[in-house]
Amino acid sequence: MTHFVNKKEDIVTEAVDGLLAASGGKLARLDGYPHIRVVVRSDWDKSRVALVSGGGSGHEPAHAGFVGPGMLTAAVCGDVFASPSVDAVLGGILAVTGPAGCLLIVKNYTGDRLNFGLAAERARAFGLNVSMVIVDDDVALPDLPQARGVAGTLFVHKIAGASAEEGADLARVTAAAEAVIDQIASIGMSLDTCTVPGAPKGARIPPGRAELGLGIHGEAGVEQVDYQDARSAMRMMTEKLGSAIATEGPYVALLNNLGGTSVLEMQVLAHELVNSGIGPRLTHLIGPAVMMTSLEMRGVSISVLPATDRFLAGLRAPTPLSAWPGLAPLGAVKVLDLPDGLRPIRPMPSQHPATRAFLLRCCEILIAAEDELNRLDARAGDGDTGSTLAGAARALVGAMDRLPLADHTQLCRAIGLELSQTMGGSSGVLLAIFFVATGDAAASGLPMREALMAGLARMQEIGGAQLGDRTMVDALQPALNHLAQGLTEAARAARAGADATAKMASARAGRSSYLNPEQLLGNVDPGAEAIARLFEKLSARGSAGHWGE
Amino acid sequence: MTHFVNKKEDIVTEAVDGLLAASGGKLARLDGYPHIRVVVRSDWDKSRVALVSGGGSGHEPAHAGFVGPGMLTAAVCGDVFASPSVDAVLGGILAVTGPAGCLLIVKNYTGDRLNFGLAAERARAFGLNVSMVIVDDDVALPDLPQARGVAGTLFVHKIAGASAEEGADLARVTAAAEAVIDQIASIGMSLDTCTVPGAPKGARIPPGRAELGLGIHGEAGVEQVDYQDARSAMRMMTEKLGSAIATEGPYVALLNNLGGTSVLEMQVLAHELVNSGIGPRLTHLIGPAVMMTSLEMRGVSISVLPATDRFLAGLRAPTPLSAWPGLAPLGAVKVLDLPDGLRPIRPMPSQHPATRAFLLRCCEILIAAEDELNRLDARAGDGDTGSTLAGAARALVGAMDRLPLADHTQLCRAIGLELSQTMGGSSGVLLAIFFVATGDAAASGLPMREALMAGLARMQEIGGAQLGDRTMVDALQPALNHLAQGLTEAARAARAGADATAKMASARAGRSSYLNPEQLLGNVDPGAEAIARLFEKLSARGSAGHWGE
Repeated sequence: MTHFVNKKEDIVTEAVDGLLAASGGKLARLDGYPHIRVVVRSDWDKSRVALVSGGGSGHEPAHAGFVGPGMLTAAVCGDVFASPSVDAVLGGILAVTGPAGCLLIVKNYTGDRLNFGLAAERARAFGLNVSMVIVDDDVALPDLPQARGVAGTLFVHKIAGASAEEGADLARVTAAAEAVIDQIASIGMSLDTCTVPGAPKGARIPPGRAELGLGIHGEAGVEQVDYQDARSAMRMMTEKLGSAIATEGPYVALLNNLGGTSVLEMQVLAHELVNSGIGPRLTHLIGPAVMMTSLEMRGVSISVLPATDRFLAGLRAPTPLSAWPGLAPLGAVKVLDLPDGLRPIRPMPSQHPATRAFLLRCCEILIAAEDELNRLDARAGDGDTGSTLAGAARALVGAMDRLPLADHTQLCRAIGLELSQTMGGSSGVLLAIFFVATGDAAASGLPMREALMAGLARMQEIGGAQLGDRTMVDALQPALNHLAQGLTEAARAARAGADATAKMASARAGRSSYLNPEQLLGNVDPGAEAIARLFEKLSARGSAGHWGE
Repeated sequence: MTHFVNKKEDIVTEAVDGLLAASGGKLARLDGYPHIRVVVRSDWDKSRVALVSGGGSGHEPAHAGFVGPGMLTAAVCGDVFASPSVDAVLGGILAVTGPAGCLLIVKNYTGDRLNFGLAAERARAFGLNVSMVIVDDDVALPDLPQARGVAGTLFVHKIAGASAEEGADLARVTAAAEAVIDQIASIGMSLDTCTVPGAPKGARIPPGRAELGLGIHGEAGVEQVDYQDARSAMRMMTEKLGSAIATEGPYVALLNNLGGTSVLEMQVLAHELVNSGIGPRLTHLIGPAVMMTSLEMRGVSISVLPATDRFLAGLRAPTPLSAWPGLAPLGAVKVLDLPDGLRPIRPMPSQHPATRAFLLRCCEILIAAEDELNRLDARAGDGDTGSTLAGAARALVGAMDRLPLADHTQLCRAIGLELSQTMGGSSGVLLAIFFVATGDAAASGLPMREALMAGLARMQEIGGAQLGDRTMVDALQPALNHLAQGLTEAARAARAGADATAKMASARAGRSSYLNPEQLLGNVDPGAEAIARLFEKLSARGSAGHWGE
């Protein structure tokens, strides 16, 4: 897999300099490149207890992104997934520690424990007051010899950071950190491995499987499980958490994106978390956000902490850091009534078996074509034309009983209304306009064939597509032009029009207009294909009936 | 590809509810599920101009994540990559528009233009004061018939939002939005396609290639280019931007993660942007952050806007939204001197050809084993053992001229110091401890073989690894124990010890201790393998010399 990096050995120094540039002067670094990469608050005056954290890189925004007022004083950045050297940690401690002393917040990995531990010894030899806490929040296995430190570390940074910012002494800041560490529980899950720049992509997790109980260094999870959906994934994670948190009382949850999960999915997971088995016990939420990542891993972790007044005060304390997403109280989702004027008057439903059969047949044809139209669209677009049309067709089937089937003028308007409410997308509006305008034209006395042509004209006026622009118009216009000669002729004309779109090297309307000729040539426009297919199938069954008159 | 979603038709409603839950009551939605998904500020009193935006979903946090004081009043959410229906947009307008009127901010896609345009017409028919602006910031092709609206839309949301928050009337808010739109330029690049939930993963972008000039709906970029590294990628993007922005004067840049790029890479890209051809013209930076995404696309976009006082005031205006990363002034990276006490006194270099040859041979062996040790580590770890050891070996080769080669006691300490400064990782510190302690023991008068065993004992004390714990100790301890019988015997013992680690079903120290037996059995521990290999190769050449005495 390719990454947005340059030489492997420059990744961390360049990333740190990028962070510093984006900090607007609020962050500085020590002059220790390439091996010593320490980010510090540029406004630090050593008047209070300093907080130093860090570890391997690849977890951004942790840890350097959390350096600032109310959180860390310095972050020591190792290579990707490798602990920083003793000298680098010592440099960080010496740079920020004054008479008030320094707390080291270390995640429980052997390398970090060793390097931070040795650096603390060397700093103490200089007469500095240094204490150290080890975060071990991972509950992946109940009997781990050494539970790992993962995203729950953020709770420690924030609460100890607020305590230090308030001016507490080293003993109190350390005690605050230890009180948090005693009560955090975290669990992670991923749908795919992450890839260290320069290393080959691992294929450890096959499709349909997920890893539960992850560290944050690409190491395998403690178990591989069948993956079904967001709900069952959340159930597996919250069951692990539920058995790890024995005490009563409310909790705050921290929902962390491991790096490569889309924000859309993270919002779905937030919904599932709130509605999970531990949901009723959650009173506050931090995130969803990228906080402690594992490069671009498509995974998520959840950390929980009892929602005591003291912890909440620390989590709520202000910090200007944009990487900290803030603490939100959880409550019922607020739902407002739909405004008046949104629901137009609906025509009275009526029955007409032949019209019903014809409409159902049209819908069936579009539903059957879903996959093939999607495939066609995927060659140069987002692959959803088939699903959009099939979705509208399914909605229309579901709406059949409330349609005025016996009155074709009202029926056209009603179909337009249904499409405008259910279909979405540009084709949805354009087809709604087509049907509403067809209904209007029929109401003015035109026969159905001419009314359909008036609808088409109105759709072209608003959408801007002309013949030859590589849209559904290229099939629909010839079809309607030939409808007077019967359905077979109309189908033949629609097919010829659709096939001609494969030879159109540029599109002047619709989404395809952003594509270059190589991406278009040889591919039939999926909208035109849908129209051609509809007419062909209707003609094969001779079922056009009164609509083709 | 699997996604953290449930049923396809529920993705957007569940994601919206997740966002609302995480908002702490600051957001509400209209009661229009499943088709009408409109997110509004729950504190809105219609006293000022309302700002309504939206479009297809899949761009989170845009647009609902930007609903709040100082930015949007409402966001209308379509299906993934599909425009919302006219009714949904109308619902949003009606819900938030008071006497001050409403501005619709629409990205230039056919569907959005149609749906928002028709909704505006219907809202005006109710007597509401509605204006609409179209954002078309994409400069992928200079002669696009309709330039797309992409991440530059954020500039419009923020600046028009600040104007509305200040109490400006609709004409002024609209003019502010139009002034921004006139001057934005954006360009995007991606290393891979995104995947719409439920649709197959596209394989349009082969390894080593990238797409330049992207929309945000998974459609193909306007050109496919060879991908080399972050620097050349940034050059291609900034050259496009540079030719699109003709005016003189300073610019603000918005660096947007298209969804699946790691935060580490985004920081490298920020560094490259600042150091790019347009870098000298940039005075301010927004991001890097996820703002306008294309699901989990591993891509990036850059948008620029002239840094006029008026625009900067709007971008600087406060907003409590955590999705807005803030505006940072760009300046030189602040670098602080390394603290005193970090640089220990180095011993005087000295020459000793045999020792030099022996050390170089050891380094060569480790460098040659890099790939194979990485592969071994990748089976259950993060695949970097080989690179870590080879990196240290290379650093040692580079340091050869400053080592006290003629004094083995000082040499051991100096090697320990080198490793502590260059190697990182747990193995780095442990080996540093091993060499420093070996030097200390030799200084106290022990022969080298016994000094090495004393070094091992100290390393085990701090690292905690015993024989049988599946670490390098399993090869190193037997090797040193047999060194008195010659190098061949030591190599045999190291190999037997390393091979035995493949039968150890659990590890009690080091990173492997988090793995389950299935992941361990059959795989030799890479650290033990490195030791065995070192002794075997040295023994094959009979080159141990005085170290094995």
